[in-house]
Amino acid sequence: MAEQSRSLEARLRAVEDRLEIYNLIAGHPPSADTGNAAYAEAVYAEDGVFDRGPGLAGAAGNKALGALLKSDAHQAAIAGGLAHFTGLPHTALDGDKAVVTSYLQILTPKKSGEAVEVPNHGASRGYHIHRLVTNRWELIRTASGWKIKRRVIRPVDGSDGSREILRQALAGYA
Amino acid sequence: MAEQSRSLEARLRAVEDRLEIYNLIAGHPPSADTGNAAYAEAVYAEDGVFDRGPGLAGAAGNKALGALLKSDAHQAAIAGGLAHFTGLPHTALDGDKAVVTSYLQILTPKKSGEAVEVPNHGASRGYHIHRLVTNRWELIRTASGWKIKRRVIRPVDGSDGSREILRQALAGYA
Amino acid sequence: MAEQSRSLEARLRAVEDRLEIYNLIAGHPPSADTGNAAYAEAVYAEDGVFDRGPGLAGAAGNKALGALLKSDAHQAAIAGGLAHFTGLPHTALDGDKAVVTSYLQILTPKKSGEAVEVPNHGASRGYHIHRLVTNRWELIRTASGWKIKRRVIRPVDGSDGSREILRQALAGYA
Repeated sequence: MAEQSRSLEARLRAVEDRLEIYNLIAGHPPSADTGNAAYAEAVYAEDGVFDRGPGLAGAAGNKALGALLKSDAHQAAIAGGLAHFTGLPHTALDGDKAVVTSYLQILTPKKSGEAVEVPNHGASRGYHIHRLVTNRWELIRTASGWKIKRRVIRPVDGSDGSREILRQALAGYA
Repeated sequence: MAEQSRSLEARLRAVEDRLEIYNLIAGHPPSADTGNAAYAEAVYAEDGVFDRGPGLAGAAGNKALGALLKSDAHQAAIAGGLAHFTGLPHTALDGDKAVVTSYLQILTPKKSGEAVEVPNHGASRGYHIHRLVTNRWELIRTASGWKIKRRVIRPVDGSDGSREILRQALAGYA
Repeated sequence: MAEQSRSLEARLRAVEDRLEIYNLIAGHPPSADTGNAAYAEAVYAEDGVFDRGPGLAGAAGNKALGALLKSDAHQAAIAGGLAHFTGLPHTALDGDKAVVTSYLQILTPKKSGEAVEVPNHGASRGYHIHRLVTNRWELIRTASGWKIKRRVIRPVDGSDGSREILRQALAGYA
């Protein structure tokens, strides 16, 4: 009985881990699109790294992560209308570590072009999908919840970087 | 043992709540895109409110919600091809209440422009993201499952309404 | 006590099923966008069917599914930059069977048009949503996990095929 209870507890904990991780990923867009630095600081490990690839500034350390959201450039993007839109993530849990692989769109309202009318849904010029990236989130369990140790994103542009992130998610199938 | 079992039960129930809530959110697009009024009536509280902001008709009461889906205007939108596309929602459960914060795209097929060919994926003029909104869903537990007490949406257009919804989701981080 | 424990076990198993199914759906885009045939072969039943509707080649049998991903045409699509982007799926679990209903976008980088600059997010011509489809996934539980018995997709183009898939998901509400 004790054995079985322990097993139920372990299974339940794994399920809770999965859901906590979903929420961590789902909290990222609200944080990015409002410039909530405190959230970024809370969910990244102190030495957490955000690797955006060549050409875009990343950050090392949760304080630097928060500062990125407070930068003038990021605030300007928010003022123009910015949406991080995340698909259903793939999660691989391994005890006190987890890897999440997800797709993310970054959208802004179109500034030009003709407005389209849709019945019961108003008129709109629509949205521009500015970036579409694959994400690898390496997470660790800490006393204060799951934290991001390393996040890597690469744009879907035909080059191999984004595919490499996806391949790692399914490395068990080859 | 009884104590521990109760605790497991309570934790399991919270997990089931989360998954039921995911399904409630995931059921919204099929309902909206087929005009299934019965679904809307079932998942909204009798006095549930849908607040679409200034400029678009909302509804108060689950019957009015259903009627909105049956309206000529909404049926015309469906006939033209309509897709509500929801990202991964953020959920905050608090006993018999829950708040979900999510992003939603509303898309229609492009009616003009050049078709693009993608190997193994046919030719298409593509899709127009007509609206991109943030959603706040205030839910309550009832004897017949989780119900929507109030849903507020605001467009991502640079104004503060959509950001306010996002900020509330991360109010614990400030 | 045994009764209650069994009940907890059954409930926990249903929760684990739901999360395993989420991961199965979330694993599809990485597989499709890298041409990982082994994944497709593993998650489809041996006699699993992929029905893409009239106009696009589907496949019957998990080996044929894998071969589709290895085809020259599919590899060419991948080389150009290909992203399958899945929304939050609706799941209906019934013992050893399950039905998942989901929306899927298939995107490619725009090959023409003007680049747009977004502060802190670089310049980009943006992405073309090439296809937007509804998906019905009929799953079965096997000794080696949940498998896809039949997957049907239909484009959102105003015709009834995609709506029929959505209607089935909410057949209990009519």
